[in-house]
Amino acid sequence: MTKVKMVRNVLEKNDKLAEQIREMGDNSKTVLFNMMGTPGAGKTTLLESIIPALKEDYKMGVVEGDVATANDADRIAALDVATAQVNTDRFGGTCHLGSEMVKPALEKINYDQLDIVIIENIGNLICPAHFDIGAHYNIAVVSITEGVDKPAKYPLMFRNSKLAILNKIDLLEHLNIDIEEMVAGIKQINPDIDILKMSALQPNDGIALNKWIKKRGRRK
Amino acid sequence: MTKVKMVRNVLEKNDKLAEQIREMGDNSKTVLFNMMGTPGAGKTTLLESIIPALKEDYKMGVVEGDVATANDADRIAALDVATAQVNTDRFGGTCHLGSEMVKPALEKINYDQLDIVIIENIGNLICPAHFDIGAHYNIAVVSITEGVDKPAKYPLMFRNSKLAILNKIDLLEHLNIDIEEMVAGIKQINPDIDILKMSALQPNDGIALNKWIKKRGRRK
Repeated sequence: MTKVKMVRNVLEKNDKLAEQIREMGDNSKTVLFNMMGTPGAGKTTLLESIIPALKEDYKMGVVEGDVATANDADRIAALDVATAQVNTDRFGGTCHLGSEMVKPALEKINYDQLDIVIIENIGNLICPAHFDIGAHYNIAVVSITEGVDKPAKYPLMFRNSKLAILNKIDLLEHLNIDIEEMVAGIKQINPDIDILKMSALQPNDGIALNKWIKKRGRRK
Repeated sequence: MTKVKMVRNVLEKNDKLAEQIREMGDNSKTVLFNMMGTPGAGKTTLLESIIPALKEDYKMGVVEGDVATANDADRIAALDVATAQVNTDRFGGTCHLGSEMVKPALEKINYDQLDIVIIENIGNLICPAHFDIGAHYNIAVVSITEGVDKPAKYPLMFRNSKLAILNKIDLLEHLNIDIEEMVAGIKQINPDIDILKMSALQPNDGIALNKWIKKRGRRK
């Protein structure tokens, strides 16, 4: 069997299970979000900034993906929401979550009782974009400190997402970059994508993101 | 054939070719460096900051790895050093360079005529650490803006490297982090690793990195 064929088989199996996961969500009226982005883009801090307000309105849960450690799941569980950690070192240290890892994690937090589940994928700008994990909405997170050329260099994640978050906007004044160049680069790849410029560390900046998520959530 | 076995076969083939590449370098007295790190950690800017001085002393070349675009290779070629671009979108958009991509790139820049070749791997904190590409020395680059917990969360790259560069140190005063926590985290994973705190944008900061590389280079 060729390498290409092997990879295709793995992807097909993954995507089939992803479709099942999405149907599970549809059946229980649970909306699934897949948050992807670079390591250190601020994904967990973003979640910490929006969960307190989100959980007032929705029953919510979080699945935390990491190669190693339960650091992020511990931070989220401290906010008193249903949390499951997936460590991919059990799966060969893979650089992305796969459907076969997500399904048991969703079951562990009784996803069917929840309105919204946010899955924080492995910190990686490439691999997660290749693997459908059954989410209804993909969100791409980058930090503006990474440079404005990242979308063009890693296009797939932005092509497959409904929302791009440009995080750490509070550092803009210390960087020698044109943020609008980053916005234009993303729009060139995906004209329909929504874009939020924000800082997870600025309390009010989470409001727009919360609004974006709430608009797509369904209360039971 | 199981998935694990398939992956093992791919890795074995890669590692065997990597060993050949390292021998090729030994035979021609060409020292190969593999620079790995997150997207936007500043790898290309680091290279831009050290190449002008390095090429005074050594015949050098660069292999640029990216999923898409030749942005980085264009930046390096402008410094008048032998440069080859590898785009992995031809290889299914893989998240790492593999030996089979590196070998033709080295041949393209006539590596055997060079003293030093720096291979800039795909921007990714996970995958490149899994793939030996035949370098004599691995270098891991992170930006301090990514947070101090990254080494613990992505340990393999730091375990497999001889040098860790903590880049963008000029932003330290604007971040609420303890940089020594990051240093300790790396040392815990790999006590023998060298660590350089620097900013690729500060002209004098490249001197220590140049010294580190020069110490390992061999002039023909």
